[in-house]
Amino acid sequence: MPFDAAARINTDRFRATFEALTKSGATPGGLNRPCLSKAHLEARSDFCDLARRSGFDVSVDGAGNHSAILRCARNNAPTLLLGSHLDSVPNGGRYDGTLGVAAAFETLQSITESDLTPDVHLEVIDFTDEEGTWVSLMGSRAATGQLTEHDLDNPRGRLAEFDQALATANLTREGILGAARTDEDFVAYLEVHIEQGTRLSNTGLDIGVVSGMVGIRMYLVTFRGRADHAGTASMDDRLDAAQGAAAFCLAVRRTVMGRFPDCRANVGRMTVTPGAFNIVPESVMLYLEHRSGNRSRALKLEEALRSEALNAADAFGLSVEIEFLEEVHSAQMDDSICRAVESSADSLGLAHCRLLSLAGHDAQSMAQICPAGLLFVPSVGGFSHSSREFTEWSDCINGANTLLRTVVTLLSAT
Amino acid sequence: MPFDAAARINTDRFRATFEALTKSGATPGGLNRPCLSKAHLEARSDFCDLARRSGFDVSVDGAGNHSAILRCARNNAPTLLLGSHLDSVPNGGRYDGTLGVAAAFETLQSITESDLTPDVHLEVIDFTDEEGTWVSLMGSRAATGQLTEHDLDNPRGRLAEFDQALATANLTREGILGAARTDEDFVAYLEVHIEQGTRLSNTGLDIGVVSGMVGIRMYLVTFRGRADHAGTASMDDRLDAAQGAAAFCLAVRRTVMGRFPDCRANVGRMTVTPGAFNIVPESVMLYLEHRSGNRSRALKLEEALRSEALNAADAFGLSVEIEFLEEVHSAQMDDSICRAVESSADSLGLAHCRLLSLAGHDAQSMAQICPAGLLFVPSVGGFSHSSREFTEWSDCINGANTLLRTVVTLLSAT
Repeated sequence: MPFDAAARINTDRFRATFEALTKSGATPGGLNRPCLSKAHLEARSDFCDLARRSGFDVSVDGAGNHSAILRCARNNAPTLLLGSHLDSVPNGGRYDGTLGVAAAFETLQSITESDLTPDVHLEVIDFTDEEGTWVSLMGSRAATGQLTEHDLDNPRGRLAEFDQALATANLTREGILGAARTDEDFVAYLEVHIEQGTRLSNTGLDIGVVSGMVGIRMYLVTFRGRADHAGTASMDDRLDAAQGAAAFCLAVRRTVMGRFPDCRANVGRMTVTPGAFNIVPESVMLYLEHRSGNRSRALKLEEALRSEALNAADAFGLSVEIEFLEEVHSAQMDDSICRAVESSADSLGLAHCRLLSLAGHDAQSMAQICPAGLLFVPSVGGFSHSSREFTEWSDCINGANTLLRTVVTLLSAT
Repeated sequence: MPFDAAARINTDRFRATFEALTKSGATPGGLNRPCLSKAHLEARSDFCDLARRSGFDVSVDGAGNHSAILRCARNNAPTLLLGSHLDSVPNGGRYDGTLGVAAAFETLQSITESDLTPDVHLEVIDFTDEEGTWVSLMGSRAATGQLTEHDLDNPRGRLAEFDQALATANLTREGILGAARTDEDFVAYLEVHIEQGTRLSNTGLDIGVVSGMVGIRMYLVTFRGRADHAGTASMDDRLDAAQGAAAFCLAVRRTVMGRFPDCRANVGRMTVTPGAFNIVPESVMLYLEHRSGNRSRALKLEEALRSEALNAADAFGLSVEIEFLEEVHSAQMDDSICRAVESSADSLGLAHCRLLSLAGHDAQSMAQICPAGLLFVPSVGGFSHSSREFTEWSDCINGANTLLRTVVTLLSAT
């Protein structure tokens, strides 16, 4: 049987790669590798060692993205890019990102060993700061020309600490902003990732074929009432901002679950002013975000939540102000790549479905400059961003095999 | 008609005193005189000037309490103490405290001019830090031997700032803790204060005869769930601590209004952890206090609120922990003094009722060492601790006249 019809990864080598890439920063059951931390830089170094030992070229771009490259004979050939990320959230899990890098690297090795002679460059990339310790999707946004100076001037941590971390990793702002690969030709970008949710495990499916990433909209919602003495002001005379905030917080969940089951929303913070035991709250500011697969749905949900906010304010004699802060646009994965993933899964006898990613991934950056595909494997219990994150090893193998066959399909089509 | 039956204050002089004592720290409509601030120390100096110009002895104790004294011939005579405080909350009103000092001082002047020859010392006192800028009721608790080193080591602001403020006012810790007057003999302590609520104004009454001060109980209530990715975790899988906190916040108000209308409660702060847009809240800590006129009622309310907290936790799969922090015990005013206040009000044709004070006052410190009385005059709209605080001048006069006649009654009885 020719390789391209029965291609399978080397499961022992894949396991060894995964173990090698999850050594640095290991915690009981998880990983602690915030971007540019010592443990993260060590993991990247482990990846380079592996790549060199396996005979691949190693390249590091101005944004710190690390690549293992198998060049084809044709110099001006396009690149088929595979990848994910080796950084983690603080005290994160072993699978988020690292599984994708390991699966991509195993695919590269399997192709190298096969009788295929790709007519394109094959590159496995480890993107910088997918988790946004400093700047969300920094590496993939830099590589696709979507990062701005403003992003680098407004990291999540303190600017001085960010600059120190960049210096430690030998990175500069000029290098990061100069890392755009927008003039190159990419066949496609492909990524394997854990689902970080329960849709696959709840339905017993093996592979999630991601159709796109949700858009996210963020707001500050401020209820304003009147500060009063918490003893002398009678209960029914109060304009207690916390009551409106509480009613709204409950209404957000109720609205999404009842009328927008395809969406998500979260009230992640409530700041009460002045914030003392004996003063009736004058104002409460809530951090609100919601996620939807398409923008018209997002705007309908926004309208419903605005109406709930007004109702909550009215019920307690308050005013409310809703400040729209930021939008992360939704992204579409390439449909022909989705179909290639589906037929690869079919050929492996794996059950699959299309689904929307409710989190951000490097694939959404790449989708801006080339056809991109993302496939999910099941997360046990849906846990992620913690040491409880776990994926059955058989599912990891399924993901890597599906990736390999998709790559073979794309190579055959070029 | 003898003085004691028809005693009335000199309203022009009372007005002049009130204006003199509200000059320092004046804001548009209010006063900004946090304890030991420059404006507060100036107001105390204005009080001393007034007292000296009017021929009274001036005394300042180790806690910074300022007094104007009319000594009687008998050296070992007891003291009839009148007073209130000249400090304010930040950007407070003109009447809270200052009206009581002005009314007490006018009463002292009226007695001096009368044909009465008191057989007791008469003293008007301006207590330090009633508002608790640093330590609640510091001056009156020091004078009554209730202040501890622990209190002085744990001021509300930063310790270094407190020490600096004490130094500026020439106060020392030793002086403050040595200011106890517990070995002296007090006939009584009397105070006039604004109600800071709407019970008098809503019922059209002139004078509130305070039967006692509420007890206050303070708690930290912590709901704990699970931090999750706000995108990937499905809405019905979440253990969102903010939902429990919100449900409890609404339940507190509902419970008090529905089943404990004689009590008050407040959720003054909610701290969400980790507190990010994209993370489902893992825990929320609420500041809760409630106030009741008697302890058994307070404990019944506590029981009801504990049950509501458990219900709120159960509804969202959370755990809840209720940490009891601190109790301010209720205090009783002296019944015979209440009756003296009532007959004084009757003699002036003023409508009155007994009521519970829902805020703390220096009278509750004094009640620990002598019979104490507190009378309220109406607050327009109930506003207090802001520049909206206002009391009709005719009500201020009613309060001062009632105080004068009560003093006359007590002097006649000694």
